[in-house]
Amino acid sequence: MAALAARQRRFQVILISQSAHDEKVQDVLELAAERNVPVRRVDRQELDALAHGTTHGGVLAIASPKPRLSSDQLLHLIDALSEPALLLLLEGVEDARNLGFTLRTAEAMGVHAMLIKKHLWDFDPVEIARPASGAYERLPLVQIEDVQALRQLRQRGIQLLGCLAGVKRTLYEADLTRPSILAIGGEKRGLSGAVRAVCDGFITIPSKPSAASLSLSHAAAIILGEVRRQRLMQQAPNANA
Amino acid sequence: MAALAARQRRFQVILISQSAHDEKVQDVLELAAERNVPVRRVDRQELDALAHGTTHGGVLAIASPKPRLSSDQLLHLIDALSEPALLLLLEGVEDARNLGFTLRTAEAMGVHAMLIKKHLWDFDPVEIARPASGAYERLPLVQIEDVQALRQLRQRGIQLLGCLAGVKRTLYEADLTRPSILAIGGEKRGLSGAVRAVCDGFITIPSKPSAASLSLSHAAAIILGEVRRQRLMQQAPNANA
Repeated sequence: MAALAARQRRFQVILISQSAHDEKVQDVLELAAERNVPVRRVDRQELDALAHGTTHGGVLAIASPKPRLSSDQLLHLIDALSEPALLLLLEGVEDARNLGFTLRTAEAMGVHAMLIKKHLWDFDPVEIARPASGAYERLPLVQIEDVQALRQLRQRGIQLLGCLAGVKRTLYEADLTRPSILAIGGEKRGLSGAVRAVCDGFITIPSKPSAASLSLSHAAAIILGEVRRQRLMQQAPNANA
Repeated sequence: MAALAARQRRFQVILISQSAHDEKVQDVLELAAERNVPVRRVDRQELDALAHGTTHGGVLAIASPKPRLSSDQLLHLIDALSEPALLLLLEGVEDARNLGFTLRTAEAMGVHAMLIKKHLWDFDPVEIARPASGAYERLPLVQIEDVQALRQLRQRGIQLLGCLAGVKRTLYEADLTRPSILAIGGEKRGLSGAVRAVCDGFITIPSKPSAASLSLSHAAAIILGEVRRQRLMQQAPNANA
């Protein structure tokens, strides 16, 4: 449903199990008709074989992969925004599940596009999509080849803030209402030297010193929650506590 | 290491594989000696059998379970705090991993104790402990039998705020510097009617309307990040952006 609604993939056909009840797949049938995607009824066994398992819920689509935005397409997307850009750059994500949860939180907090380094594209898209709860289909994903793409974005007036443990400025002290790229690194190695070298500045989450470090997806949630707060408060300053 | 350092469990003995190098287990040996916990060297095979697997890293402890705080012990803990209490109440957590990540974020953001309903204690503690990264050992856990315990806490002047989708007041508009219990429900059913009935008020995370709902552990991260911000800003108001 999310993939059909997001209009990012090209659909060849949607296969529906003959044993699936019409009312259960009604939404899919309606949206498929609206999008001119053919629907075929097939044997449950055929579906199981195509889906490599039995957790498909009776519906399977043959479609192109989730497309990646080119740098040019990203610039067009940014130019068309009616609000300051908010981009999230991830490095060193350790598993597909974490990436999926981060996509979901990012969409909910108003991120416009995710910038992801090449190796993350090797994750199983099904494992990313499940925890992302539709956000994987809807959120634009940009594959970053090198830091040149980041320099280009900075030249457009977008600040690049790296999130690091132990730096002096907290996220609460940064102006996150400005057009921003937030760069967050994995738990093991943090941000790469190459990305640090092109950052405009760094921010930190002031955790309790005695505690373990935050996981990447939860650090991202805290930072994006603060972006959301600052941007909503700017729109309606009197609502501030 | 975290369990030894936290001093919450009673240790019978620590078993270390004969093939483990001394320098790799040096920290464990030192802390065990300091805590008067006996250490025995055993065969790798014996360790594998006791640990039901081979991912123990050569070290295994025979110890009492992580203890739960009684309501009385919780009240003593709160009375001894030098800052306003911050408690997190979870309902409807769907898996051990999510609970573990939530414990980790909670500790990092300054939560003093977790209030958890009975059924969550059925999760495999090893599955909770791994993503919690030590927080499972350190953070006090209180088993809540019914809402009477929550009423008792409210009578001590601790506000009970329920986090719900769609209510009018955002978390950014609530005064989270006050002694607080934050109640967060699972993704499927949210907070129970019984807990809602004893809440002082409700807050919501103002997500993008078109996005999927946040996962419980990421919603908790956003809310606890805002608590941390408000409390740090109260201590050092000039640091505010």
